[in-house]
Amino acid sequence: MYGKFLIFSGQSHRSLAEDICGHLGLRVGESKTIKFSNENLMVQIEENVREADVFVVQTAAPPLHQNIFELLIMLDALKSASAARVTAVIPYFPYVRSDKKDRPRISITARLMADLITAAGADRVLTMDLHAAQIQGFFRCPADQLQAINLMCDHLKRRDLTDAVLVASDAGEAKDVARYTNRLDLPMAIIDKRRDGDDEEPRAAHIIGDIKGRSCILVDDEIASGGTLLRATELLLERGAREVCGVATHAVLSGRALERIQSSPISEVIVTDTIPIPQEKRIDKLKVISVARMLADAIRSIHDGTSVSALFR
Amino acid sequence: MYGKFLIFSGQSHRSLAEDICGHLGLRVGESKTIKFSNENLMVQIEENVREADVFVVQTAAPPLHQNIFELLIMLDALKSASAARVTAVIPYFPYVRSDKKDRPRISITARLMADLITAAGADRVLTMDLHAAQIQGFFRCPADQLQAINLMCDHLKRRDLTDAVLVASDAGEAKDVARYTNRLDLPMAIIDKRRDGDDEEPRAAHIIGDIKGRSCILVDDEIASGGTLLRATELLLERGAREVCGVATHAVLSGRALERIQSSPISEVIVTDTIPIPQEKRIDKLKVISVARMLADAIRSIHDGTSVSALFR
Amino acid sequence: MYGKFLIFSGQSHRSLAEDICGHLGLRVGESKTIKFSNENLMVQIEENVREADVFVVQTAAPPLHQNIFELLIMLDALKSASAARVTAVIPYFPYVRSDKKDRPRISITARLMADLITAAGADRVLTMDLHAAQIQGFFRCPADQLQAINLMCDHLKRRDLTDAVLVASDAGEAKDVARYTNRLDLPMAIIDKRRDGDDEEPRAAHIIGDIKGRSCILVDDEIASGGTLLRATELLLERGAREVCGVATHAVLSGRALERIQSSPISEVIVTDTIPIPQEKRIDKLKVISVARMLADAIRSIHDGTSVSALFR
Amino acid sequence: MYGKFLIFSGQSHRSLAEDICGHLGLRVGESKTIKFSNENLMVQIEENVREADVFVVQTAAPPLHQNIFELLIMLDALKSASAARVTAVIPYFPYVRSDKKDRPRISITARLMADLITAAGADRVLTMDLHAAQIQGFFRCPADQLQAINLMCDHLKRRDLTDAVLVASDAGEAKDVARYTNRLDLPMAIIDKRRDGDDEEPRAAHIIGDIKGRSCILVDDEIASGGTLLRATELLLERGAREVCGVATHAVLSGRALERIQSSPISEVIVTDTIPIPQEKRIDKLKVISVARMLADAIRSIHDGTSVSALFR
Amino acid sequence: MYGKFLIFSGQSHRSLAEDICGHLGLRVGESKTIKFSNENLMVQIEENVREADVFVVQTAAPPLHQNIFELLIMLDALKSASAARVTAVIPYFPYVRSDKKDRPRISITARLMADLITAAGADRVLTMDLHAAQIQGFFRCPADQLQAINLMCDHLKRRDLTDAVLVASDAGEAKDVARYTNRLDLPMAIIDKRRDGDDEEPRAAHIIGDIKGRSCILVDDEIASGGTLLRATELLLERGAREVCGVATHAVLSGRALERIQSSPISEVIVTDTIPIPQEKRIDKLKVISVARMLADAIRSIHDGTSVSALFR
Amino acid sequence: MYGKFLIFSGQSHRSLAEDICGHLGLRVGESKTIKFSNENLMVQIEENVREADVFVVQTAAPPLHQNIFELLIMLDALKSASAARVTAVIPYFPYVRSDKKDRPRISITARLMADLITAAGADRVLTMDLHAAQIQGFFRCPADQLQAINLMCDHLKRRDLTDAVLVASDAGEAKDVARYTNRLDLPMAIIDKRRDGDDEEPRAAHIIGDIKGRSCILVDDEIASGGTLLRATELLLERGAREVCGVATHAVLSGRALERIQSSPISEVIVTDTIPIPQEKRIDKLKVISVARMLADAIRSIHDGTSVSALFR
Repeated sequence: MYGKFLIFSGQSHRSLAEDICGHLGLRVGESKTIKFSNENLMVQIEENVREADVFVVQTAAPPLHQNIFELLIMLDALKSASAARVTAVIPYFPYVRSDKKDRPRISITARLMADLITAAGADRVLTMDLHAAQIQGFFRCPADQLQAINLMCDHLKRRDLTDAVLVASDAGEAKDVARYTNRLDLPMAIIDKRRDGDDEEPRAAHIIGDIKGRSCILVDDEIASGGTLLRATELLLERGAREVCGVATHAVLSGRALERIQSSPISEVIVTDTIPIPQEKRIDKLKVISVARMLADAIRSIHDGTSVSALFR
Repeated sequence: MYGKFLIFSGQSHRSLAEDICGHLGLRVGESKTIKFSNENLMVQIEENVREADVFVVQTAAPPLHQNIFELLIMLDALKSASAARVTAVIPYFPYVRSDKKDRPRISITARLMADLITAAGADRVLTMDLHAAQIQGFFRCPADQLQAINLMCDHLKRRDLTDAVLVASDAGEAKDVARYTNRLDLPMAIIDKRRDGDDEEPRAAHIIGDIKGRSCILVDDEIASGGTLLRATELLLERGAREVCGVATHAVLSGRALERIQSSPISEVIVTDTIPIPQEKRIDKLKVISVARMLADAIRSIHDGTSVSALFR
Repeated sequence: MYGKFLIFSGQSHRSLAEDICGHLGLRVGESKTIKFSNENLMVQIEENVREADVFVVQTAAPPLHQNIFELLIMLDALKSASAARVTAVIPYFPYVRSDKKDRPRISITARLMADLITAAGADRVLTMDLHAAQIQGFFRCPADQLQAINLMCDHLKRRDLTDAVLVASDAGEAKDVARYTNRLDLPMAIIDKRRDGDDEEPRAAHIIGDIKGRSCILVDDEIASGGTLLRATELLLERGAREVCGVATHAVLSGRALERIQSSPISEVIVTDTIPIPQEKRIDKLKVISVARMLADAIRSIHDGTSVSALFR
Repeated sequence: MYGKFLIFSGQSHRSLAEDICGHLGLRVGESKTIKFSNENLMVQIEENVREADVFVVQTAAPPLHQNIFELLIMLDALKSASAARVTAVIPYFPYVRSDKKDRPRISITARLMADLITAAGADRVLTMDLHAAQIQGFFRCPADQLQAINLMCDHLKRRDLTDAVLVASDAGEAKDVARYTNRLDLPMAIIDKRRDGDDEEPRAAHIIGDIKGRSCILVDDEIASGGTLLRATELLLERGAREVCGVATHAVLSGRALERIQSSPISEVIVTDTIPIPQEKRIDKLKVISVARMLADAIRSIHDGTSVSALFR
Repeated sequence: MYGKFLIFSGQSHRSLAEDICGHLGLRVGESKTIKFSNENLMVQIEENVREADVFVVQTAAPPLHQNIFELLIMLDALKSASAARVTAVIPYFPYVRSDKKDRPRISITARLMADLITAAGADRVLTMDLHAAQIQGFFRCPADQLQAINLMCDHLKRRDLTDAVLVASDAGEAKDVARYTNRLDLPMAIIDKRRDGDDEEPRAAHIIGDIKGRSCILVDDEIASGGTLLRATELLLERGAREVCGVATHAVLSGRALERIQSSPISEVIVTDTIPIPQEKRIDKLKVISVARMLADAIRSIHDGTSVSALFR
Repeated sequence: MYGKFLIFSGQSHRSLAEDICGHLGLRVGESKTIKFSNENLMVQIEENVREADVFVVQTAAPPLHQNIFELLIMLDALKSASAARVTAVIPYFPYVRSDKKDRPRISITARLMADLITAAGADRVLTMDLHAAQIQGFFRCPADQLQAINLMCDHLKRRDLTDAVLVASDAGEAKDVARYTNRLDLPMAIIDKRRDGDDEEPRAAHIIGDIKGRSCILVDDEIASGGTLLRATELLLERGAREVCGVATHAVLSGRALERIQSSPISEVIVTDTIPIPQEKRIDKLKVISVARMLADAIRSIHDGTSVSALFR
């Protein structure tokens, strides 16, 4: 269908792009991003892309807005350089939690991101574990969403799950946790949170379901500052859990998240590398599972026109 | 901002349109829908709409696809008749549960609906209780979403809620139920369902949370065939609930739903009139709360340019 | 140009899709349409369509709006499943007679249909005998229009046409009839109709042209309820025609059309199978000519990139 | 609804724009069109149009393509100068007969024109007597189509119509002629034309209907070179017509049309001023009826938001 | 035309927004921007904007990409909150020098910015001194461009200009400098630069025009790192200029620009406040002219629908 | 990537299309343009173009607007005839100097042209020496811009350039001239023009840079009426230039340009054939360099998907 098969990388997560290319027997396409003193970026694609099937790997990592913009510029440069098809490969989609209008006069920014990415020239998008399944409907172009659940469950199954229980850190996560309970055939519990007023932070009221003496696995789609995860861990232990570990696809780990994890009673945190985690951040408690092969398989499948869903059955 | 203020009605729910107009001191705009022997519809708007601020009330009631097309045709006719602004008022949005791609090669039909409605000429949409909050992001035009929760809670508060518990019929509903628990300051329980295989129907495995001896309030956004609701009712009673009632905004009540409700042990089902429920269907167990005033208030607010969110605080 | 060559069928006319596939040596693509109790449809495409050249066969047959909607859902599902090109094959185009604004504030619904079909994802359209040639200009995508006139004339030529005359049932049909007169080298007559008021039905005033003692062939693009055709037949016989037969591409045959044809003095009605005519409806007077090969040839031509117009010269 | 009410004129038919403004008590808006030596046009709008309701009068008169581009440039200039709404008033729409694809690989140029006019910035269009009613469906913006039939019939009624017959110059015109027969309660006749081959010019074969000894009124939408009209006149007189006159909205009168009319046996040709007819061309046989008031009434109605269709009932 | 008149401010240059509001007798609209630990922004518009005429002031100042996204998010929030019209007021337009494709496979990022701003919901744009006049053609919406030249010349005229010469720092600036020479009736000189290879930095070769013993005024549209300006100053002084000062609308002043200016032999640098210059950066050599009144006048003019160009004649 | 490789030609410059085809070993595609008496054009593409990679050669030559329109019709006809990709090859782009809004309420017509060309169906554009590099940003589709500078410099280098100086006819051209100075390693001079009032023509005030006794080469992008070129020539000779020649890519040569060149003291004018220059116009002083091979190379490169920029390094 298409000519050359090329994968370019923005600056947000070059090692992931290299790993993906490694699995595919390709090298990362030549491009150069210069940042001028006025912060302006200049991206030059340094090889011919006419009629090529091009993939650009960029993830929502810091510096966040610069990286989003670098992606938009690359899409524009590739499209106007006559690439036949440009696929934005965005393992962690930016602003994925701004997916609804839960207060007046705010932006559904995940939808805005989808619009900007197509306005800049993306013909398709490949992403992973969106905060809500409905977000796939925000894209005007074909969008494939991969899920880390298989990788995660494979890892979890190596543990002793005899008395394990999967825990949702609030009711909103129950749906996602249910996918794990089904796969692992484990019971579920939910931390019931309440708000005292519209602008108040929710506080954990009690725990629905049985966690006493059990090994709790907290499941979430992302860990940002770690606050939610660690408060839940403390609550579970207080209420009698034997042990707590956490599972989350996207390791944002902003602010002092790593220090807090390290010093908290949580036993392990299992994440993927959709966001770069440099070697010095890979503390003992953090188990990082690579999504590079999964992304590589999906990219090859998109390029070859074979079924992506068949890959992950 | 706009000239005349006009409200038209499709054929799906004329009494609601009349109730809305009643609250606003308007009459329903003149229009005529003819159905030819080949099923083709011909809608003629029978009053001048140039530069008018027009609202069209149509809901996702049977005959579903004919009603969808009547709406699309009305939008097109109004727009090409030079209405200044056309707002589609769709209390129950069609295909609202087709909001994600949970199996390969299906359509996110709620997104398609949003696209068709704007393609036909709608400048804005007013709807109620979408299955997921993210669906608001499917619209390319401004879309207001009203919520029946206040009306529902006002009604529930009249009951004795001493030992009541709010129940989600599966983990996916937990988030919506949490909004009720917060408002009513009641505990929550969740029916934990499992699938034995990808294509299997989920079956209720057990109940998370305490329901024994309690009055259970099952909360959902819609009741279609009633199967989910009634199976949950039976399970809850089996497991020791004292009594079960149901709350759902959209009373689809398809197939033999009403008969099943009538003959089931459920004590009451509280719904709204986003979908027409003719007098003969208004059985004792069914409590129907009207959304006409809420919609009328929102329509006036949209017409006047005052804050819709302020209305419902 | 494209990868796999696939033809899917909606539910409106599966036998035609099968006949087309038969001519092409293909099987109909695997897909499944489920109708839920709330009338919602769920279409699942059951084979990989990535980068494929896909055709979807659906015609404007009852249940009309459900079938149109099934087509829109299939287009959306195919497009978001990454089909390279999706062609909507619509032998009888819906709302084809709603092609002008002949009264105030109505919708040009054929144009709306064209817009909805492209909004849902069609890259091109293949259709037959549009009510007016101008309708081709309603499409924003390439649209091929086939004509049944050759098939019809081949059939008519087998009859004794010595004293035959082609008759337009009103002045608006004269243009189409003229194409037949030219092809068959026969004279023409026109039934001159008048309206007594804007909202009155037109009534046949007199006949322009010579039909006395002649065999009359009434030509139209479609037969809906049959009223126009049979009233014209009676008039022609009253005014001295020896015999009357009818020719029309699209056999809508709504309401009691078949019974009325059977009991009328018309001798034969020649139609095509752009709309399904089940065996039990194939009464003696009805001669059904298949368009399956013509559509198959055009589809192959579109797939191969050869000239469609050359096919029908 | 809108601010200032302004009417600008291109160079194609300034006197019509002035007549329209006269009826409305406005002056033609200030603008200047310069043509450089390289044929490039530069249009400057010379008064403030911000937030104004602007109409631009331009018709399809020679130099045709320069006039089309002057219109497109004016629309662009007005829109980018922040006019609130721009209505293109195009009494004779360019390329109106290129409305279908009657041979392979041609452009439906009337549709292209509609697209170009909206691409250049028109928010709506006001035009007259399109060659086919379906053309209204080519516009993506609201489009009003006025009809000269009332003006024409008022004029014809002043004649003695006792033995008159309305004649269509070929079958394609029969539909339009039928509108006149109904209005004037007169009989109809049709000139039956045949082509000997696909690329041959059609030749008049015979006349359907009775014209002997009658006064024939040939009705068409436009007169270009006059060939069709004058050949029909000769044929009708040959076959025994007592007298022939012609009626056509758009007086293109290209090439030697006027001389041919003057020297032909046709008694009168009734046209409108949708295209400029300078005084020296207003020969005796030509009766020119002004559409200025009709256009002025429609423009005022569009500006005021009152019903345009009501004007012409 | 519009309802309420509201001006909101992003975080890039709140003092300018306040100055503009001061001139207009308005207060800055209430809005709140929160930055989460994962860098995500959440903007909430805190007053009703339905049907309002809204302006958002944001300039291309550091942190550049965060400010761009804050603007895009605000536009989206305002538009989906039903503002009637949203004007992006962007005194210094981001990426304004990325306005052409002067090497292969780069993005014309100024065009991309224009597209993103309209994709996010801006109905119009107000900006100042674009790097090239052609950039105005990048916008699909009406865009007003103001020019600081009048303010600058008023300031320069207060100096003794007897022996002054305006100098372009390279041939590309000659066109802009010519606008000053004409206004001030002064001679011009140009620094002629050459590149030794495609990827080499250009070096000043010689000076075209007479600068010996003269007071040189270097004119540019922006000062980024100051390198160009200060190298030109040194060259001019070397070649015999008596004195050098600089004029530039946009004071980017990135990196060590201010220190370099302070310690350089340049006598004065005249800039505007399109970019914030905090008090501590306002060194003696820097003369800052405010554009707040000019922007305020233009905003009022846009709101009132009066001529913006008339303001600046 | 694409099927057949076809090049069609409009009527503006058929000999260039033939020369391009000659270099590519192709024949010009069969098409026919008919001009009716009412000036309407009818273009028929006379060979199958389904799935083909089609190029259409048309330049901005007289009759200008007819030629632009012929191009738009051809693009529309090709696209609706299912060409896979249509590239408009426009050596001299129409309205290229209407590229900015240098007075109020005018159209940036070059941008409008870009919009019309994409609205009509062009998938990409190939053009040469746009008046300003920024114009490339006007296109929504990929647009390649070739430059004649290499051809021109190759020609100039054959002359004795010992004492040559490159001259810009006003400050606006300095940037373009600088590209030549760099390539040829020659000095530059600029004619400094002033306007006495906004609506006055600019007059040459003096010359910046040294031209005395030198051979002057005036560089511009186009020669229209020749006024600018010849007035500059006279001025240069008056001020002591030894000799003057001119270089310009686009030889518009409108009005009496050729006669004026012939009778002027200019020694030579070097142009290309982006605009047709018939044999009788090829006067001695005019040196015409063909761009056919350059365009042919670029077209082949676009078709093959190889780098166009690599061609011209």
